[in-house]
Amino acid sequence: MKKLVLLRHGESIWNKENRFTGWTDVDLTPKGMEEARSAGQILRENGFVFDIAYTSVLKRAIRTLWITLDQMDQMWVPVNLTWRLNERHYGALQGLNKAETAARYGDKQVLLWRRGYDTQPPALTNDDGRYPGFDLRYSHLTPEEIPLTESLKDTVIRFLPYWDQTIVPQVKSGQRIIIVAHGNSLRALIKYLDKVSDDAIVHYNIPTGVPLVYELDDNLEPIRNYYLGNSAEIEEAMLAVTNQAKAHI
Amino acid sequence: MKKLVLLRHGESIWNKENRFTGWTDVDLTPKGMEEARSAGQILRENGFVFDIAYTSVLKRAIRTLWITLDQMDQMWVPVNLTWRLNERHYGALQGLNKAETAARYGDKQVLLWRRGYDTQPPALTNDDGRYPGFDLRYSHLTPEEIPLTESLKDTVIRFLPYWDQTIVPQVKSGQRIIIVAHGNSLRALIKYLDKVSDDAIVHYNIPTGVPLVYELDDNLEPIRNYYLGNSAEIEEAMLAVTNQAKAHI
Repeated sequence: MKKLVLLRHGESIWNKENRFTGWTDVDLTPKGMEEARSAGQILRENGFVFDIAYTSVLKRAIRTLWITLDQMDQMWVPVNLTWRLNERHYGALQGLNKAETAARYGDKQVLLWRRGYDTQPPALTNDDGRYPGFDLRYSHLTPEEIPLTESLKDTVIRFLPYWDQTIVPQVKSGQRIIIVAHGNSLRALIKYLDKVSDDAIVHYNIPTGVPLVYELDDNLEPIRNYYLGNSAEIEEAMLAVTNQAKAHI
Repeated sequence: MKKLVLLRHGESIWNKENRFTGWTDVDLTPKGMEEARSAGQILRENGFVFDIAYTSVLKRAIRTLWITLDQMDQMWVPVNLTWRLNERHYGALQGLNKAETAARYGDKQVLLWRRGYDTQPPALTNDDGRYPGFDLRYSHLTPEEIPLTESLKDTVIRFLPYWDQTIVPQVKSGQRIIIVAHGNSLRALIKYLDKVSDDAIVHYNIPTGVPLVYELDDNLEPIRNYYLGNSAEIEEAMLAVTNQAKAHI
């Protein structure tokens, strides 16, 4: 039986400011850091040990991982960073306040962008200051790989090759792995593992800062999964995510 | 012309308590963290960008690197961890207060352990709680690779294969690299790069928290090297290291 731990980063500054974030590299809030500490503590209390960690190239995920490993006294675990675990790219909406966006484009359109599995928000142009090609960390990507906008479906498509080619062989060989990432890149993985439908996955909410443990058989078929921690607190965290989503659709 | 940056970790708790540390995994002091922040700031001010970072598996070096990358806003730089960059293993002296050790074994013997290039301190036995084989992070090493004690010469011998096989090809291919490590593992590299004699290297002091830049030609022969920062502060840092060494030999 293989185990895999997924962890969604804690609250970021733009979560708090209610802005579309996507690939914008905003940091955690103090609350987000506290969420990461709790995640590390509960993993340590439950005796988890990791051989390899995976995360995105965005600091809210990297810092969540660093704090988690620090709390576990496992700072020596090798960390692999990949843009393929980045949050869904939110195109030209990145940086906009969600309430303002709803006022400008209408609730219905925003709902479609947020909850349509294959609906892309308006695209960036590649002369926009927000174009990822201007950022050093993406300088090794081909222009075709650099997104100008993404639907959740696009996020699934760009994440899965990394899962198949890099992470799967490690899990199969018995390496104990934690993946610290974002709401949508984790949805991409969960959709694939649990064969969730296109409609259902957009309504699936992952609480921040709560380790989600997958137990997998030798073919990496899920046997069961569970959140680590106090179940009342997890309920509360799930509710908070659901309400946040509701408030802004 | 290739550039390589070396950085010695900031003050650790046992530096402050004046104990032999070696492979003991003690953390930085608040002063040590401040040193790391300064290193990151000066690297940022000087426009350094890194493609790859290397460090040991000891948290005082890892944390120094994390703080440095955070200050540079380059948390996304991939980090490679290796036990071969660990501090010199100090054998059965690890954990002992340096003044007590001098009182017990005599100043002359302690001087020899500290300043003899190929003198090993008393060895651990492999049933000692301090034996690295009990530590998960060394579980992939062969018994022959796990040190029971080391001279500086032993540290050079175990570090150089990693330099040759892993770091050199990266530097030659133009990757911009930072190595964050320890007084003796950095001495090992400097001895090799600058062809320093066995006698001279043990008296060569590297200040903590001050980036040391090597400019190398295409064959990785040093052209020149320099410390980054305010020269008066660097002088002070070098003097502090020298005095610390003097006080405890």
